[in-house]
Amino acid sequence: MNLQESLAALDRYQRKTIAYRHALDMIYYDGVTVAPEGSAANRGESMSILSEELYALTTSPQVKDLLDSLWEQRNALDEAHFRMVFLLRKSQAEMEKIPVDEYVAYQKLVNESEAVWHRAKQENDFASLVPYLDRIVHAQRRFAGYVKPGMDPYDYCLDNYEEGLRRDACDAFFTMLRAELVPQIHKVCASSHKPDTSLLHIHAPIEKQRLLSDALMNVLGMDLRHCALGETEHPFTTGFTKYDARITTHYYEDNFSSSMFSVVHECGHALYDMGVRDEFAYTCLGSGVSMAVHESQSRFFENIIGRSRAFISHMAPKLRELFPELAHASNEALYGAFNESHPSFIRTEADELTYCLHIMVRYELEKALFDGRISAADLPREWNRLYREYLEIDVPDDRQGVLQDSHWFGGLFGYFPSYALGSAYGAQLLKKMEETTDVFGQVALGNLAPVRDWFQEHIWQYGQLYAPKALMEQAFGGPFDPSLYVDYLTRKYTDLYAL
Amino acid sequence: MNLQESLAALDRYQRKTIAYRHALDMIYYDGVTVAPEGSAANRGESMSILSEELYALTTSPQVKDLLDSLWEQRNALDEAHFRMVFLLRKSQAEMEKIPVDEYVAYQKLVNESEAVWHRAKQENDFASLVPYLDRIVHAQRRFAGYVKPGMDPYDYCLDNYEEGLRRDACDAFFTMLRAELVPQIHKVCASSHKPDTSLLHIHAPIEKQRLLSDALMNVLGMDLRHCALGETEHPFTTGFTKYDARITTHYYEDNFSSSMFSVVHECGHALYDMGVRDEFAYTCLGSGVSMAVHESQSRFFENIIGRSRAFISHMAPKLRELFPELAHASNEALYGAFNESHPSFIRTEADELTYCLHIMVRYELEKALFDGRISAADLPREWNRLYREYLEIDVPDDRQGVLQDSHWFGGLFGYFPSYALGSAYGAQLLKKMEETTDVFGQVALGNLAPVRDWFQEHIWQYGQLYAPKALMEQAFGGPFDPSLYVDYLTRKYTDLYAL
Repeated sequence: MNLQESLAALDRYQRKTIAYRHALDMIYYDGVTVAPEGSAANRGESMSILSEELYALTTSPQVKDLLDSLWEQRNALDEAHFRMVFLLRKSQAEMEKIPVDEYVAYQKLVNESEAVWHRAKQENDFASLVPYLDRIVHAQRRFAGYVKPGMDPYDYCLDNYEEGLRRDACDAFFTMLRAELVPQIHKVCASSHKPDTSLLHIHAPIEKQRLLSDALMNVLGMDLRHCALGETEHPFTTGFTKYDARITTHYYEDNFSSSMFSVVHECGHALYDMGVRDEFAYTCLGSGVSMAVHESQSRFFENIIGRSRAFISHMAPKLRELFPELAHASNEALYGAFNESHPSFIRTEADELTYCLHIMVRYELEKALFDGRISAADLPREWNRLYREYLEIDVPDDRQGVLQDSHWFGGLFGYFPSYALGSAYGAQLLKKMEETTDVFGQVALGNLAPVRDWFQEHIWQYGQLYAPKALMEQAFGGPFDPSLYVDYLTRKYTDLYAL
Repeated sequence: MNLQESLAALDRYQRKTIAYRHALDMIYYDGVTVAPEGSAANRGESMSILSEELYALTTSPQVKDLLDSLWEQRNALDEAHFRMVFLLRKSQAEMEKIPVDEYVAYQKLVNESEAVWHRAKQENDFASLVPYLDRIVHAQRRFAGYVKPGMDPYDYCLDNYEEGLRRDACDAFFTMLRAELVPQIHKVCASSHKPDTSLLHIHAPIEKQRLLSDALMNVLGMDLRHCALGETEHPFTTGFTKYDARITTHYYEDNFSSSMFSVVHECGHALYDMGVRDEFAYTCLGSGVSMAVHESQSRFFENIIGRSRAFISHMAPKLRELFPELAHASNEALYGAFNESHPSFIRTEADELTYCLHIMVRYELEKALFDGRISAADLPREWNRLYREYLEIDVPDDRQGVLQDSHWFGGLFGYFPSYALGSAYGAQLLKKMEETTDVFGQVALGNLAPVRDWFQEHIWQYGQLYAPKALMEQAFGGPFDPSLYVDYLTRKYTDLYAL
């Protein structure tokens, strides 16, 4: 094959893998949105077969030869094809090093474990998950040994979600953050200035909340020809390609802000995926580059934009129209309520100021598990101890503690730091954006085009073309500076709580 | 491989094909229910790649060798495995004989054609479909030549949907039916007894219609752990396996009976698929055996049960509760309205008495197309001529004429006769069932268990184990007798219209 033929074969191979991923993600998406409950085993059967087919394709000698031959000719490749071959060889090498039977057994294990978690959470039954978690951690440590024999296994986990991230950088980031945030949190708790949070717990019929979702997607500028909203238990976003993104939410009649900010958060993810360049759509570059960069977008829209005074003022008339109980709530009262801050049990409901402490608890526990300092059975005790230490609260039960998130039970170790990193990236992106854009002036008018345009230019279009660190430094115009995140939070909460 | 190993390989092969079909049907189902509009091209790309993968699997030398070796040992196979090997070899032989490039080009052609149909129907633009239809008919005639060189091409089409069905049997069936039904239709038209159909066109909010769907599925005894209802433009049923069936409906606020009888119809399809034996679930025997047998179930539930006096009396209180405008409608008034009969333009809205004439028009046109007596461009003229001849009405435009159904534009030639045959099978099944079961006495009480049990015992459990003709003759306890269908219709409409 000459270079042109090899590139055509590369294109076919990538389209094929994307078709398989489309099938797998589609069956998953269906499963958590509209599928009947008793179809789970059937879905597991199909997904496991299709995963094996994809595995066989990815690790086939033909594909390996193709990628090797392209790598040998890498000097003749353009930037995008160079990166594609680099990324595809990396994931192929990782897959190849894990024995297929262990890979398949692991997939089965996490599928079962996730299913057990759903029941265990309802029944506050952590004990039934202990054998699963122990086996998951054990398998991941073994995989790390296969793929990156010289690397610390937890660093391998971090690197899976954030290319290049290591625990020393994480440690430094979290240590600084904790030192700066804890005094702020103490001040907020001590403040006599308290928002009226009863506004958040009015009765909000689901039909009205669906209209609110429509209004939010409209203001955010979602292209509804390529993005649909579904309903699920635990909101998430998936994209088959940039041309077909799916966001999800969950409506609670007594807590409309839960879905409101979920929708804004998931729109951030979808905007990123949908903003990638057309020519990357059916390639491995065609989606967001890492979890932290993804969260930098979703949490930017959710918090920096969505929980801003400007955005809430713009949405307030719609809220008052949809929910008559809010008829007399002022813009400021809504702004205060949506940003109420206090140490709490549930990460996904935490305010911006306390959020990262929830992440730190998980980060410390993940390291301890991977270092073998604790085992799965110790998690509830250690979880509760760290919530006391970091957030100064006593976790009443595991449902509101170690069982709240699905991540670990689905094998996602090393993922949590992305949320905190992404949040911090957001503050630095805001600062940079404000150098050229009147962000909140436009948001107050309901015009998010300047924000979208800025992200489109600096982040979204690139997909996975650049490694996450390089992409962010290019967008920041310099190195990552987490003190900007502390500044942002300090400014916001000093104002909110009249500190 | 010894026999046991071959059977294990056969099981793996069938599970694999079912996983691919799951993926393809899932992506299709998503596309016509919740997917964003602009995702069609993306979906087409993935489906075409996955279809090619499935084609490659089905026609692979390994699978061919496996099936051939099992066929050589067929005397050692049990009834089910014998039938599996027979059916799989048949479809493999058909696939093999069609050159892969023609197969792929044809898939692309019908995908495009279906998309053009959606727009063309809206715009009453038959002309844009002529080149597609000509090519589809041409391709199918060519495929018939490849696969069954000695067979009449239209017989090949019929056989695709109803193993063993030939045009001589169809001709005899339709000739008898037309001779018997047309005088009945004349009598109904002349009757002074007219139901009050304004009951059908009250304002029925979609939320209320959704509750009606729930009530209907409940009475029909649908197992909602394994069946979900979605919303779409043109209702249909799909089943990934017996453990995951999906029915769909479309709500019209000014015509609640449209969705009401769609739901009952699609439940009939789903009950059949869900009733197959567990051990057939992941095999080629795991769904209904033919389109006519499938329609015999769906149209049985829709018409023989759903439009019966007994069923309507049972549902009437629910209808009056949901739709206050029906508060004073008597059971008899509802029964009359739901069974109003008159020659009309749209097949899917036709009453039981005139329904088969719609099918005959399509059947005559399909034969003429495949015999080369007319070409696609002649269809609107010939359609309108036959509607005048058979139903004595003048079709006002192609939207209410030749463009109304998607079948031809998706390549489904030879499918329509199944609806009429299935309807006629239903009457004979009812007669047999009534020998041992007080069908309508139980239906009036809302108890459909005896009907389900009868079908479960005589039809559903078998899936594709027996050829359709054998299955039906076994259920009938003798040969097919379409005069029972004429008797059923005569009895019903003589009573309804006091003939």
